[in-house]
Amino acid sequence: MQTHHHDHVHTEKHFQQSATVRDIVIGMSDGLTVPFALAAGLSSVSSVSNGIIITAGLAEIIAGSIAMGLGGYLAGKTEIEHYDSELKREYMEIKEFNEVERKECRDIFAEYGLSHESQEKIVDELAKNDDKWVDFMMKFELGLEKPDINRARQSARNIGLAYIVGGIVPLTAYMFTGSPSSGLLFSCIITIACLLTFGYYKSKVTGQPALQGAMRTTVIGVIAAAAAFGIARLFS
Amino acid sequence: MQTHHHDHVHTEKHFQQSATVRDIVIGMSDGLTVPFALAAGLSSVSSVSNGIIITAGLAEIIAGSIAMGLGGYLAGKTEIEHYDSELKREYMEIKEFNEVERKECRDIFAEYGLSHESQEKIVDELAKNDDKWVDFMMKFELGLEKPDINRARQSARNIGLAYIVGGIVPLTAYMFTGSPSSGLLFSCIITIACLLTFGYYKSKVTGQPALQGAMRTTVIGVIAAAAAFGIARLFS
Repeated sequence: MQTHHHDHVHTEKHFQQSATVRDIVIGMSDGLTVPFALAAGLSSVSSVSNGIIITAGLAEIIAGSIAMGLGGYLAGKTEIEHYDSELKREYMEIKEFNEVERKECRDIFAEYGLSHESQEKIVDELAKNDDKWVDFMMKFELGLEKPDINRARQSARNIGLAYIVGGIVPLTAYMFTGSPSSGLLFSCIITIACLLTFGYYKSKVTGQPALQGAMRTTVIGVIAAAAAFGIARLFS
Repeated sequence: MQTHHHDHVHTEKHFQQSATVRDIVIGMSDGLTVPFALAAGLSSVSSVSNGIIITAGLAEIIAGSIAMGLGGYLAGKTEIEHYDSELKREYMEIKEFNEVERKECRDIFAEYGLSHESQEKIVDELAKNDDKWVDFMMKFELGLEKPDINRARQSARNIGLAYIVGGIVPLTAYMFTGSPSSGLLFSCIITIACLLTFGYYKSKVTGQPALQGAMRTTVIGVIAAAAAFGIARLFS
């Protein structure tokens, strides 16, 4: 706990790891859920063989991993673009609306109960350097941290790969069984076991109650599969 | 632009809208992409009828919307839990490590070029009120804003619904054609038109170059569909 105070790099590393874990959690939980549910849904259709279920599952996994990887990438990119456009605006504002910006800066500190004298002093000292003042307003007025350019790419890769790994699991049952109904049975057993394990581990990592987390993750997978099964039976 | 200065509520509303737009963008772009690609993949398999493609597509849409909605919900929940645990730690720190925390607070302002005298004055005034000091450190040391509890639920709903709307589009082509090959042809036409329109509109909303955005969104959809088609043909 005390290292938190001595080593700021340590703290940032902690955040970086959380982001990676979060990416893997997002990709893997969707990967375990969607192809599992799709396969379960197709199992309810009488004219469908294990071959078609596996083919559909693989098609879904590749499409889903591309779409989710892209989702992560675009989310990161949007964040970076948002930051850059706000940064430009803040530079413009300290030039064009200098007095308004000084007042905004004083107001920030007024909110935390600082005296008028301190407010004035802080703004005077900050305003000496444009770059530092803008940096300050970005973080403190807008609550924006400079995003890490590489995160977008890392996030895309992590989510995409985690989706593929998670998605293969429920399909394996259809590879080693002779009919959709027995495939479905084993797919449920394997996937529910994985969802429980994954949900448990995920909760441990994010510091939530582990058993509750395991149950929650599993229930969502089962609901998705049951919904897909119901919809497929209804429309086939 | 100037209203930005006069109305802080206005600014927050702007962010709120961005979050909603981002949710819809995430859900819709995945919805247009994944069921489109899955249907395209299944079209490559000779034993598959339009009925099976539609059934698989609907099963995927319902499962995907549940999984994505959940993803949004969990992301929001994780953010809230992370904030709460950091808040608790910060209260503990100003009690147990008061001197260290005061130094951290001074260091924040040292980074922006404030004089030692100002640093001392700010910390003295901030430390008079525990709640305000902790609020300050949360926002300024850790860069964390108090998350909106309702956002997690809203995000789940927006992403899930957008996924369903986006996913239905490519499937309609298989409903009004007689064979997978003609279904695929019309699905490509309809979906590519939607991806172009959606990508264009999305870029307008987020302030990016619109034509480039339209192309990018479309290319991803096409890549996912081509990959799914290739994989399905390979394994069928």
